[in-house]
Amino acid sequence: MTDLPRHMTPDEFREHGHTVIDWVADYMAGLDARPVMSTASPGDIRAALPERPPQDPEPFGAVLADLERVIMPGITHWQSPNFYGFFSGNSSGPSVLGELVSAGLGVQGMMWATSPACTELETHMLDWMIDLCALPERFRSNRAGGGVIQESASSSTLCALLAARERAGGIGGLDRYVVYASNQAHSSVEKGARIAGIPPDRFRMIEVDAAHALRPDALAAAIAADVATGLVPMAIVATTGTTSSTAIEPVEAMADVAEQYGVWLHVDSAFAGSAAVCPELRFVNAGLERADSYVFNPHKWLLTNFDCSLLYVADREPLLDALSILPEYLRNEASDGGSVIDYRDWQVSLGRRFRSLKLWFVIRHYGASGLQAHIRGHVAMARRFAASVEQHPDFDVVAPVPLSLVCFRHRGGDDVNKAILEAVNASGEIFLTHTVLDGKHTLRLAIGSPATEQRHVDAAWQAIVAAAPSGQPG
Amino acid sequence: MTDLPRHMTPDEFREHGHTVIDWVADYMAGLDARPVMSTASPGDIRAALPERPPQDPEPFGAVLADLERVIMPGITHWQSPNFYGFFSGNSSGPSVLGELVSAGLGVQGMMWATSPACTELETHMLDWMIDLCALPERFRSNRAGGGVIQESASSSTLCALLAARERAGGIGGLDRYVVYASNQAHSSVEKGARIAGIPPDRFRMIEVDAAHALRPDALAAAIAADVATGLVPMAIVATTGTTSSTAIEPVEAMADVAEQYGVWLHVDSAFAGSAAVCPELRFVNAGLERADSYVFNPHKWLLTNFDCSLLYVADREPLLDALSILPEYLRNEASDGGSVIDYRDWQVSLGRRFRSLKLWFVIRHYGASGLQAHIRGHVAMARRFAASVEQHPDFDVVAPVPLSLVCFRHRGGDDVNKAILEAVNASGEIFLTHTVLDGKHTLRLAIGSPATEQRHVDAAWQAIVAAAPSGQPG
Repeated sequence: MTDLPRHMTPDEFREHGHTVIDWVADYMAGLDARPVMSTASPGDIRAALPERPPQDPEPFGAVLADLERVIMPGITHWQSPNFYGFFSGNSSGPSVLGELVSAGLGVQGMMWATSPACTELETHMLDWMIDLCALPERFRSNRAGGGVIQESASSSTLCALLAARERAGGIGGLDRYVVYASNQAHSSVEKGARIAGIPPDRFRMIEVDAAHALRPDALAAAIAADVATGLVPMAIVATTGTTSSTAIEPVEAMADVAEQYGVWLHVDSAFAGSAAVCPELRFVNAGLERADSYVFNPHKWLLTNFDCSLLYVADREPLLDALSILPEYLRNEASDGGSVIDYRDWQVSLGRRFRSLKLWFVIRHYGASGLQAHIRGHVAMARRFAASVEQHPDFDVVAPVPLSLVCFRHRGGDDVNKAILEAVNASGEIFLTHTVLDGKHTLRLAIGSPATEQRHVDAAWQAIVAAAPSGQPG
Repeated sequence: MTDLPRHMTPDEFREHGHTVIDWVADYMAGLDARPVMSTASPGDIRAALPERPPQDPEPFGAVLADLERVIMPGITHWQSPNFYGFFSGNSSGPSVLGELVSAGLGVQGMMWATSPACTELETHMLDWMIDLCALPERFRSNRAGGGVIQESASSSTLCALLAARERAGGIGGLDRYVVYASNQAHSSVEKGARIAGIPPDRFRMIEVDAAHALRPDALAAAIAADVATGLVPMAIVATTGTTSSTAIEPVEAMADVAEQYGVWLHVDSAFAGSAAVCPELRFVNAGLERADSYVFNPHKWLLTNFDCSLLYVADREPLLDALSILPEYLRNEASDGGSVIDYRDWQVSLGRRFRSLKLWFVIRHYGASGLQAHIRGHVAMARRFAASVEQHPDFDVVAPVPLSLVCFRHRGGDDVNKAILEAVNASGEIFLTHTVLDGKHTLRLAIGSPATEQRHVDAAWQAIVAAAPSGQPG
């Protein structure tokens, strides 16, 4: 006979689970005091781990002890109130608990039939988000379009490009298709185009204006030139809230061009889309009703753990044509009847977690009013920070601040700005990242952590000023 | 001033977290008693949800009450000991808790620098898995190759095909590339090829032998014919453990063909790969040391929640060439120095969760011996079930049973087998799915749930016999 594996019994799970919940609660409570950035050197973490896996079971307590001893020194704390790098990657209590329920259930949502609630709650949450953000009605599931939760804006944009490829004529035209986005578009756009078979020399990076947003005249000129040489415009990607500076590109004017040439228009609002829960910030979605597809990530700024990227399409047919393959072992009555959504046909992967649970937990815990307060607080803090920068004789705000990202520079030049960045990050007090705008090294303060309060942003500004070379009297 | 959002405080998280842990523990303890398959009709779940999202916060208790009332009737219980459908999608206590820690930390592992522990633990676990499964040394991270955790075998195989495309000459050759796999290969292979720009008419489904495994002579003939017409073989995909019947395709002989033509060889062992923790089952990996890439999913049969798909490559360069794009806002000293791994260049998405935590928790909780016992128990039960089927005058086992899947049929023909399937699934006692082998409707009993014991399999067989038309005396 075979030995039985030592499964963790439900009662053992209960005991260890309470311990882990307490560990996470303590982590949340103590985040403010931890240095934001890990100071680990390459190889440090691995050096602290046994070279070979254990032959026999280890007590759970030993694992938790190593979590603290080995792993934590290698963590840069994305949930810290003092984290201002990249864009935020929001977590929240209700979201973590939704993820926990999802893991506990361990169901697959590849088809409606494999757990109907997994599909239906997802569809429902995507429709709720249309209400919360006043998104175009043509994205609603009872129309020709609909929405789906993807892993990331990268995978959402890839799927949008595959749908665009399908509508442009399919794989057969790959030797002539061209994709257009501004030179401020996220790297995932070029990556998605490349995966879909568009070579770098047919991925056009269109010039931007002084506010770092795509110039529609340059877009129109590029397309006209390509069409004149027999190339086929496949997709235009507008970014509303670019990664470098949250520039909002002119979707309305880009839609004019898209319509003129019959080109798919995809809107990437990965970060900024969450802002649309606030009526006064819905300028981020101006023109969106003319887009063919749209992505925004509640896992960035809407309190829902990664991964939770929402992809909407105005017409689901080209997406399904691009991604459906039905082998016998997946056939079932519900799918054959056509009365249900099978999300495996809306994404790259077959398998999928029950990701809508965490979104449901978050929306119900906060309500529309709570989500709005979360966004508004960050926007207000960013404006106040920008005002402080502007008032300082040695610093400038160097891009518009439509939302919660402030791009700024010390007047001392690239080396000074690099030195400031290194100094504040090394201090552990705050964590910033950089970009290059107009050829110059630029500091980014991206406010997005749920734990960030005004006092944190004030302290961040003090740390930055303290790290700068002392100003000359004016 | 702006109202503050009602965040869940650490203490509230502690309280609600304990409640959710208890809910999951109770769910685990009561799984045996729940009907396996949801009997929901399309629209049932949505009809029980409010049409519009809440304006204001709701108490957490209301969400949990609705979880039970609205969601649970729509769940097909993949973790039930009586779930024998598709392939299993394993969960386990330590894995759920690893996922919980990952969600609580909420860090991004897109680059080494964004949380060094996230990258280093992943690399270390991929190396540990080489020890646990005696995988080829050339997949180890200190060689030219290495491994990465992906979302699914679909995304792993897509990335392998993109690396193959790169090595074959890049996007420019897309009008001539051909991809080869058996007609029993998983739908994700054709889907991945299509995403990468290979049209259906250049995706060759090679014939299989009586055991439903690819025929190397047919593969060699197909490639020779394509090369003769000027086409370029881009990739060969071998499946070790096909979805329909766990047929083990002859990797060694396929590698001979691949080498002869200089074609990338990818091995898809999504389900069966876990078996290699047992030395006596390592026939599943025969020839693997000659593969360019390899995928297997601990989230199927190795006690680690979805998503945890492991992709290994023998040479990481073509993969990185296919998937690397480095914008300024992601540049950092560690990456520029080249001393670290940045996993964003190993996958489609930029963002990534800390997925190696759950694998670490699982390996340490079970140890190699516990993982072996888990697999061995299922294999032994499958063999005993197959023996029962063989002994019954009305049933036949219709494919080899190398692992834990038994393909079988009642002799009464397709309609009888369909009726049996419907009856047992409707009963709620067990859940089976089907496939078609040799043109005939075939029942699949896939043993893979950690909770399944011999008594469950015995009862499953009784339920199947009871659902069959009563046999005639011999």
